Amino acid sequence: MKYHLFALATVFLLGACDARGGSSEAAAADRNWAICIHGGAGVVELTAEQEQAYRKSMRVALDLGRELLADGASALDTVERVVNLLEDDALFNAGRGAVYTAETTHELDASIMDGSTMACGAITGVKTIKNPISLARLVMERSKHVFLSGDGAERFADSTDVQRVENSYFDTPQRLRALQKAMGKDTKGTVGCVVLDQQGNLAAATSTGGMTAKEFGRIGDSPMIGAGCYASNSSCAVSCTGHGEQFIRHTVARDVAAQMEYGGKSLQEAVDHVLQTVLSPGDGGLIAVSKDGDLVAAQNTPGMFRARADASGLLEIKIWADE
Amino acid sequence: MKYHLFALATVFLLGACDARGGSSEAAAADRNWAICIHGGAGVVELTAEQEQAYRKSMRVALDLGRELLADGASALDTVERVVNLLEDDALFNAGRGAVYTAETTHELDASIMDGSTMACGAITGVKTIKNPISLARLVMERSKHVFLSGDGAERFADSTDVQRVENSYFDTPQRLRALQKAMGKDTKGTVGCVVLDQQGNLAAATSTGGMTAKEFGRIGDSPMIGAGCYASNSSCAVSCTGHGEQFIRHTVARDVAAQMEYGGKSLQEAVDHVLQTVLSPGDGGLIAVSKDGDLVAAQNTPGMFRARADASGLLEIKIWADE
Repeated sequence: MKYHLFALATVFLLGACDARGGSSEAAAADRNWAICIHGGAGVVELTAEQEQAYRKSMRVALDLGRELLADGASALDTVERVVNLLEDDALFNAGRGAVYTAETTHELDASIMDGSTMACGAITGVKTIKNPISLARLVMERSKHVFLSGDGAERFADSTDVQRVENSYFDTPQRLRALQKAMGKDTKGTVGCVVLDQQGNLAAATSTGGMTAKEFGRIGDSPMIGAGCYASNSSCAVSCTGHGEQFIRHTVARDVAAQMEYGGKSLQEAVDHVLQTVLSPGDGGLIAVSKDGDLVAAQNTPGMFRARADASGLLEIKIWADE
Repeated sequence: MKYHLFALATVFLLGACDARGGSSEAAAADRNWAICIHGGAGVVELTAEQEQAYRKSMRVALDLGRELLADGASALDTVERVVNLLEDDALFNAGRGAVYTAETTHELDASIMDGSTMACGAITGVKTIKNPISLARLVMERSKHVFLSGDGAERFADSTDVQRVENSYFDTPQRLRALQKAMGKDTKGTVGCVVLDQQGNLAAATSTGGMTAKEFGRIGDSPMIGAGCYASNSSCAVSCTGHGEQFIRHTVARDVAAQMEYGGKSLQEAVDHVLQTVLSPGDGGLIAVSKDGDLVAAQNTPGMFRARADASGLLEIKIWADE
């Protein structure tokens, strides 16, 4: 299956509301937990075999989240553990599967936010952290700072027991070539997870290997609270993927939440506005869960790896915009 | 004059609306340009001589902005040139007066945003850039990226004609000791400028030397679009100063704009909400100008170096919360 960027760069929105009837109270009761994951958006070209592998990986990650949430795990623990799993999967541009910089090394970024406390943590440009999202959480919980970069973030990691690896751990030439071919020249990708837990708390996590051949110590939207990651119990949790610069200048994750918080918009309306009006076709996509358990996974690209599930039995795994 | 943190940690808000009568149309016509600057917020302890020096420096910066704007300069040019002047003034923690890191070096951050295009640029952790705000503008205008860090930002600077200095240029031991004493133990500070120009365009700029003795490659709010800097012609331009982590997790600059854009709040109401409800006493302050030329400089600390002016003749320079 093959899709080209502008041929299909129409906004395709998945509204959880479509699949449900009944009053909003009944629907809310059904969804005492909800989860959505993504594995990057863009121009996707996959063989049937690759497509199957991606769907399988997303199912494994989603199932881990479903089990944790059904058992009463916190939103924060769930987004971290699900993203850990996606980071360990070389199919995705995060953790193990991180793309190469212009210097043929790997520099990883991640951010995490707890919507119940507004606590957050983020790192950029780390080179030896097996699971960047876990270091972001340690920054949130054990540092007086929110956002650490490069060598400084590595030194902070030295003071923790976070798992370290050689930078060569992220060398996956065969899979990378396949991924670069699959994702097109301008390879970028991200993984993310947003969760509403049984306690009614929201959390968001975003992790990435950045842009292929990135230069100049570029910081994208993934580690930026408000751009690629945001969570607040007063509105929603959001994780973004796509053309990072666009997501930074339009503070996309915060914008979705602000439209709900100040404008009284539904999650679906807020996401529609950002993807159709604020961003440009082909910029990317996002996943979001509202405080009421509404789930939206949407993009203005031909494809986005995405999956969602909730306590009512919803279970969806999608790649293409038109499925 | 000496103020202590919690004794006076009440929110003191300066509303441009207080000083004006007449219809909003008449007021808007009077204010075909407007400017506000800040030089950091916190616990301020100054000798009479120091106080005079700060007031004089703010007057010089404000006068430059007034002249430029009266001559029809763009908002973007004005915020850059005014911040350049504040960066060159060792009284402020930005550029020349940048504080020391834990390694007794200097690492500077800056961000700039053009509200007419939503273009923005930011840098973090640079060591040889005389005027960080000018490099942030070059990132905005000549890089495909928005946010560059550390050595990468320095390499990008190599491709431009931005003015370079040895890191020792930022060594100002005597002034630093005085500043540290003046600002208290937890020295942090920032300079910023927000402008509405005669063409109706908004721009914001924020520049800082970071926190004294900062560790771990800490990134604060100053270079983060949406946290310490934001501008959009659809609402306002904002520059923040204070406890950076708080400004990041509450995406303060974007929050002020979002309340106006989606909630229909006035600039004053939006700023009141952030400083009185969202942030905690002592966190810091911000300056903002709305698309209609309203100017607000407010803080929840005992003092903030701040000054504002507009085409109607307003000209104010203040330090203490209660003046």
